[in-house]
Amino acid sequence: MNAEIVSVGTELLLGEIVDTNAVYLAGQLPALGIDLYWVSQVGDNQSRLVEVLGRALSRSDITLISGGLGPTADDLTREAIAQLMGEVIYQDAVLATELATFFAARGITMSASNLKQATLIPSARALPNARGTAPGWWVEKGKHIIVAMPGPPEEMKHVWQTAVLPCLRHCAQAVLCSRTIKLFGISESLAGEMMTPYFESPNPTLGIYAKPDGIQLRFAAKAADEAAAHQLLDPCESIVRALFRDKVWGIDDETLDSVLLNLLAQRQITLATMEFGTQGWLAATLAAGSNTDRYRGGLVAATIETLSEFGLERALIEGEDIEKLAAAMARRACLILGADCGLSIVESPTVVSTSKYATALYIGIDGPGICKTVRVTYSGGKERIKRLTTSAAFFEIIQALRCTA
Amino acid sequence: MNAEIVSVGTELLLGEIVDTNAVYLAGQLPALGIDLYWVSQVGDNQSRLVEVLGRALSRSDITLISGGLGPTADDLTREAIAQLMGEVIYQDAVLATELATFFAARGITMSASNLKQATLIPSARALPNARGTAPGWWVEKGKHIIVAMPGPPEEMKHVWQTAVLPCLRHCAQAVLCSRTIKLFGISESLAGEMMTPYFESPNPTLGIYAKPDGIQLRFAAKAADEAAAHQLLDPCESIVRALFRDKVWGIDDETLDSVLLNLLAQRQITLATMEFGTQGWLAATLAAGSNTDRYRGGLVAATIETLSEFGLERALIEGEDIEKLAAAMARRACLILGADCGLSIVESPTVVSTSKYATALYIGIDGPGICKTVRVTYSGGKERIKRLTTSAAFFEIIQALRCTA
Repeated sequence: MNAEIVSVGTELLLGEIVDTNAVYLAGQLPALGIDLYWVSQVGDNQSRLVEVLGRALSRSDITLISGGLGPTADDLTREAIAQLMGEVIYQDAVLATELATFFAARGITMSASNLKQATLIPSARALPNARGTAPGWWVEKGKHIIVAMPGPPEEMKHVWQTAVLPCLRHCAQAVLCSRTIKLFGISESLAGEMMTPYFESPNPTLGIYAKPDGIQLRFAAKAADEAAAHQLLDPCESIVRALFRDKVWGIDDETLDSVLLNLLAQRQITLATMEFGTQGWLAATLAAGSNTDRYRGGLVAATIETLSEFGLERALIEGEDIEKLAAAMARRACLILGADCGLSIVESPTVVSTSKYATALYIGIDGPGICKTVRVTYSGGKERIKRLTTSAAFFEIIQALRCTA
Repeated sequence: MNAEIVSVGTELLLGEIVDTNAVYLAGQLPALGIDLYWVSQVGDNQSRLVEVLGRALSRSDITLISGGLGPTADDLTREAIAQLMGEVIYQDAVLATELATFFAARGITMSASNLKQATLIPSARALPNARGTAPGWWVEKGKHIIVAMPGPPEEMKHVWQTAVLPCLRHCAQAVLCSRTIKLFGISESLAGEMMTPYFESPNPTLGIYAKPDGIQLRFAAKAADEAAAHQLLDPCESIVRALFRDKVWGIDDETLDSVLLNLLAQRQITLATMEFGTQGWLAATLAAGSNTDRYRGGLVAATIETLSEFGLERALIEGEDIEKLAAAMARRACLILGADCGLSIVESPTVVSTSKYATALYIGIDGPGICKTVRVTYSGGKERIKRLTTSAAFFEIIQALRCTA
């Protein structure tokens, strides 16, 4: 069973609004075992809308539409469906009464144009919308289903959850579950080569993605129910863990900072940070975490001279041995903030000579039984470098803490 | 002239990733006078990709693709374009050398699969990508143009700005220019009421948007060239400045932090920050600015107890007078970091009683001729509160610096 998503509205084509409805609906389908092959955004133009919906009807079992159900002249989803079905729109007495009641309850005068939202075609039934004036449409044509939902995200979700989801659950025959295994310190191409045999597997399927927090291997399994799907996924995870060993730092929703903060909580260790070159990203990421009890705080140097205000010696700041500076920064962070463990990042003030875009950064870790510095080199924009370096710092301290556990 | 956007990647169909590339590209087209009618997302599947691209080629002058240019077996954009054009992919010697140099500069071994990223077809020319290993493709077929760009947003933007945009500017016939005037400390509805007469204007048109950094009034003017468009926009800006006076803090691409950092540079004043409750956002925003010479750094307390490590008295931290604490924090930040001016934010440890979701935060400013504290109250999620409070802090210090100029 496959689905297609069509988001309607000229505002989606202006580059000012992100189509969060499509993302939400896409995220709902795997658990129903429904495959999604096509997503498109189309403006408020009836002929283009009819074209898109006609193609969807011909190739997809279910077409999920959001938007274009408003009361104004440029809301054309109902008209497009009617044209496609060769049916005539009529005003439904029950819907008109409900709409009048909706307005009366809010003490607002209903304008004549709103009656457009009380219409149907013979093969459509209305999907109630308690959050707004536009009910959805559920249209069946042979084996094909077209679902039209209102565009405002809150109304769309409400109609989806209360009216669409229960009906689609009947159609669902299988579930799709996924497991993402997260690696750091390995390139996408090498990870891809090591996993080559597994790309051929039809079920579970394997996808590989490069992210700022490393490489993600994502297995998706189709099965009769969730338990059966997880039985297919467990051996995949075991294989990846055996192949990549300590490069594996987490799975699924885990983030490097959540893994670190949880480790600190388990081990009852407090952490402090000091950084130069990562623009406060280390502190901001940890402070925004969900389990921050063990994070004391961060010292952010916006200029390298500021490090002297944090008690680092001038000779060290101005010297060549950035690794030693990183180690000293981690120790000073502990001291100033009264923490057990310190983590530092410092950008080398000189650009790495081998490539004009590459920057070297040093990570320092100082804590109970741990004293480690790591040099990393990244190229690209500042934003990219700060995210990658912060990820590397989290990965290194996670590894260090796990080794000393 | 019209364009179509196709975003490639199965991850876009899983509901886990928002297609920000399409939004970015959509936002770039109006200024080029190019109309956008179609946007779609398609998975890593060659036959579906060929179908989508074939349709795009037949109905759109320009097809903008992002994604599917990686080194692994599931990256299929090049293959799909080749199939559509009926051409054979070959390895380009120059691209292969560039790629080998890219890897050598980083001291990484290039894997064989990466050579896929050094290929072309006869009707394609490569679009250089200094940020990654995948160059884009520019393909012309009759009057139609296909542009393929890498999927990682940073690389896509880089290729767009450096290689695609300059070529597309040649094609543009009319321009659409906009001017956004940015306000703080006024509600969207009040600003909307004050601007009511101007919403009727067909050219320039007016839009109003509520953002974390305040209210934006956006005028868009269509004209033969940029100079003519700006002649239409100048009087709009004058009207808004006369109406809203000191609520206006910037225009267009200006951000609150960029305005602040520029003010500091003009006045040759250095700044330091201390924060609790905004999760390092104040420091991270300023340190990531483009003109940070005058920002010394930030002290981020992840727990309120950490403030004592920064030299704040226990009685003040545990007391009722949070306004006094905010002022003291701003002064301590100056002292610790050797700056002329201090800015602080501290969240009240007690929840505001008037609404169960509302949080009170205090902003402290201490500098030459300035001593100011401001209380703000915001409700909603942590993320929203930290962005709004940081915006308020920047706005308050900008106003204070402007008053003492």
